[in-house]
Amino acid sequence: MKAVVLAAGLGTRLRAKIPKPLVKVAGREILYRSLKVLSELGIEEFVVVVGKKGELIEEFLKRHGFKYKIVRNEYPERGNGYSFYLAKDYVDGKFVLIMGDHVYEREFIEKAIKGEGLIGDRIAKFVDIEEATKVICKNGRVERVSKNLERFDYIDTGFFVLTPDIFKYAEELVKTKHEVSLSEIIERAKVPVTEVSGYFWMDVDTPEELKKANRLIVRMSVKGTGDGFISRHLNRKISLRLSEILVNRITPNQATVISFIVGILSALTTFLSVPLAGILYQISSILDGIDGEIARASMRTSKFGGWFDSVLDRYVDFLFLLCLAIVSDLSLIGWIVACLAMFGSFMVSYSTERYKGAFFSDFYKDFKFKFLGKRDERIFIAMIFCIFSWIFQLFVLLAVLTNLRVLATIYVVAKHKFGQ
Amino acid sequence: MKAVVLAAGLGTRLRAKIPKPLVKVAGREILYRSLKVLSELGIEEFVVVVGKKGELIEEFLKRHGFKYKIVRNEYPERGNGYSFYLAKDYVDGKFVLIMGDHVYEREFIEKAIKGEGLIGDRIAKFVDIEEATKVICKNGRVERVSKNLERFDYIDTGFFVLTPDIFKYAEELVKTKHEVSLSEIIERAKVPVTEVSGYFWMDVDTPEELKKANRLIVRMSVKGTGDGFISRHLNRKISLRLSEILVNRITPNQATVISFIVGILSALTTFLSVPLAGILYQISSILDGIDGEIARASMRTSKFGGWFDSVLDRYVDFLFLLCLAIVSDLSLIGWIVACLAMFGSFMVSYSTERYKGAFFSDFYKDFKFKFLGKRDERIFIAMIFCIFSWIFQLFVLLAVLTNLRVLATIYVVAKHKFGQ
Repeated sequence: MKAVVLAAGLGTRLRAKIPKPLVKVAGREILYRSLKVLSELGIEEFVVVVGKKGELIEEFLKRHGFKYKIVRNEYPERGNGYSFYLAKDYVDGKFVLIMGDHVYEREFIEKAIKGEGLIGDRIAKFVDIEEATKVICKNGRVERVSKNLERFDYIDTGFFVLTPDIFKYAEELVKTKHEVSLSEIIERAKVPVTEVSGYFWMDVDTPEELKKANRLIVRMSVKGTGDGFISRHLNRKISLRLSEILVNRITPNQATVISFIVGILSALTTFLSVPLAGILYQISSILDGIDGEIARASMRTSKFGGWFDSVLDRYVDFLFLLCLAIVSDLSLIGWIVACLAMFGSFMVSYSTERYKGAFFSDFYKDFKFKFLGKRDERIFIAMIFCIFSWIFQLFVLLAVLTNLRVLATIYVVAKHKFGQ
Repeated sequence: MKAVVLAAGLGTRLRAKIPKPLVKVAGREILYRSLKVLSELGIEEFVVVVGKKGELIEEFLKRHGFKYKIVRNEYPERGNGYSFYLAKDYVDGKFVLIMGDHVYEREFIEKAIKGEGLIGDRIAKFVDIEEATKVICKNGRVERVSKNLERFDYIDTGFFVLTPDIFKYAEELVKTKHEVSLSEIIERAKVPVTEVSGYFWMDVDTPEELKKANRLIVRMSVKGTGDGFISRHLNRKISLRLSEILVNRITPNQATVISFIVGILSALTTFLSVPLAGILYQISSILDGIDGEIARASMRTSKFGGWFDSVLDRYVDFLFLLCLAIVSDLSLIGWIVACLAMFGSFMVSYSTERYKGAFFSDFYKDFKFKFLGKRDERIFIAMIFCIFSWIFQLFVLLAVLTNLRVLATIYVVAKHKFGQ
C-alpha cells in the first residue's frame, strides 16, 4: 500500500521558515513521526505533494531513507484539494492519505490504517474544536464536511484510507474551480467513515499548539513503564517538565550520562555531608527518568540505551551505599548488614531483569507486584534516612526490605511459571 | 503432514518388559524424543503401528497429548514391512515414516523432514555398521537395501519421507509373502535417496547401545552453552559423568537445589576451615552444571529453571564472599575491597544477563569474549586462594578482575550495539 502525504503548507503561523511538516515536535519532525510509523506498518512508498521549499522535504526524505515520490504543486494557492489531485497518477489500488502537518499517536495510526474512507474521531479531546474540520455522516458515509457546522458527528482527523476512484471527483472540482479544498472532494465522493476515537492526534498550526503537542507527547512517554510509587507521585512530575524542555536539546544517551554523573557525585558527597548526599541521590533518581522519556518521546529508544542505563544505575546504587558505609565507621555487624543491603538492592534489579532474559516478557507487566523496594522507592527512603543521618538503620531497613522483596519475587514467579 | 511410526517391536534384547519405543534414554522414552520434535516441526498426527502390549504405547501417547491413531499388528512375526502396510488407510499425501526404536538428534530431524524418500547417512559415526541396514543407490534412487552388503553408498537411518503410492509395492509383497521387511518394500519402490550425514542418530537394540545413547545425548547437552575455561576443561568433565548417571534419576530443579545447598554449605564452612570451604565451593560449581545438562538431555529445559538457577547462583556467590570477609577480620580497606569484589562478581552476571533482556540474544553468542572472570573461573580462583588462605589477595584480585571485565563488556557492547 502507498500513502499520499499533503505537505505543501509553510509553517508561517508557526513563525518557522521551513515547510510545516519539517517543524520538530518533541525532538522529531512532524513528518518523520507519521512516516516512520507508517513504514513500520508496511507502507511501501510515500507520494509527497510539496509546495514552496519542497527541496527541503525531498532532502529530508532522502536522509531518512524513506521510499518516496515527490510531486510539486506549483500553485499552492489552489488549495489542498488541488495538491491532492496532483497525486492521482502515482497511486494504484487502495492508499492512505495523511496531512503532513498532523501529529498522530502510534496507536491511532495502527487503528486508522485498518479503516476505510475518512477516519473520524467523536471525542477529539486534544483538538481545538472551533478550528477543526467537522463531519456529518449519513448511513456510514460522509454527508457534509466543513469547519462551520453547528452540529456534527465526527471531527475529521486528516487521515484517510481511499481508493483511486476518489480522483474522479477531484477532477470534476479542479476543472470547474480555481481553489479546491480536500473537504469538498471528500464531501462530493461521499466516502465511508470509520471511527477511531480517543487517541492522541492534533494538527499543529500555532506556537501554542506546538508547545501543547510537545508536552502531550512527552507525557505519553511514561505509559506502561511500570513505575514505583515515588516515581509516579514525585519523580515523574518533575522529570517530565524537564524532559519537555530537554527533548529538543539533548540526546537520550547524554541524559543517561548526566544522571550518572549526578549519581556518582551524590555518592562522593557522603564524605562532605550525608544529608546533602541523600538529597543529591534523590535528584539523580529524578534525572534518571529523563533519558527514557526523551528517548520514547523523540522516537529514539535504543536497546543499547536501555542496557547501558541499567548497568550505570547499578554502579550508582552500589557506590552510594559503599560510600555511606565508609563514612559510618561501621562495626563487623554494620558491614554485614551494609553488604546485605547492597546485595539485596542489586538482587531486586537482577531478579526482574533476568526474568526478561528468561521469559522474554516484562516482570512488571506479568505481575501486579506491589511489594515496596523498587529503585525509586529505595532511593527516596535513603534520602529520608540520610537527612536524619540514620545510616545503620537505613542499612538494616534496606537489607530486610530488598531481600524479602527478592524472596517474594521468587515466590510469585515459581507459583506462576514453574514448569514453563 | 502425518507421520507413521513403527512401534511393534518389544525390548527383549534390552531385557525390558515394555515395548522398545517406551524404553527411556537420558530420562525420556525413545518415542517421546522423536514425537516431541516432530510435533514442534508441524507433524499433526501420528499413525502408530503397535504389536504386543500396544496398550502401553496408547496410554503413553494419550498422557503426553500427542494426536495419534493406533493401528494394531496382530501378526508381528510377519515383519516390519507388514506393520508398515497396515498404516495404508490412515495416510493421505506426503508423510514421514520413522522407526519407533531409533533415537534422532533434533538437528537430524529438522534436516530429514525436508528430504525425500529414504534419508541416508554416509558417515553414520554413531552406528554399528555391521548391524546397520545399508543402501546402494543408482541415479539418486534406491537400488539395493540390505544388512548384507559389502559395498554401499549410505546407511539407512530408518527415517523416510514418502508418498502413498509406496503402499502399492507393499501390497504386492504382502500378498505374495508371509514375512515382509520394510527394506524389501523400499527396494522394490526404488524411492529417492536424500543424504543427511553427520548428525547423531542410532537404533537402540542392546543394553550397551542404550548406555551409549544415554552417554552421547548427555554429552551433546553442553553444545553452545558458552562455557568458561574451567568449565570446559575441568567442571564439565566431571559433571557430565554425574549427569549420565543422574539423568534417569532426578529432575533438573532437584539438581539446582542440590548444588545450591552445597554452595550454601561451602559458604558456612568458611567458619570451620577456609581451605575446605574453597574446595566445597568448587564442588558446588561442578554440580551447578548438572541441572542444565539433565534438563537439555531429558528435554526438560524450562524458562523458570534457568531463571531460578541464576538467582540462586547470585546468592551463593554473595554468601561465600561475605562469609570469607566475616572470618577474615578485615580493616576498612579490606571491607571496601571485599564489597568491590562482591559487586564486581555480581555485575559480570548482571551485565551479560541484562544484555539478553535488551537485545534478545545471548551475549556469549554475539561476542567472542575471552576476558577472564566468568563464574566457573572466579570460583576456581577462589578455591586456589582459599587453599592458601590468601583471602585479602583474593578480594583484591576479584575486585580488579570483575570490574575490569564489566568495563570491557560495556566497551564491546557500546562498540557494536551503540545506536541500536
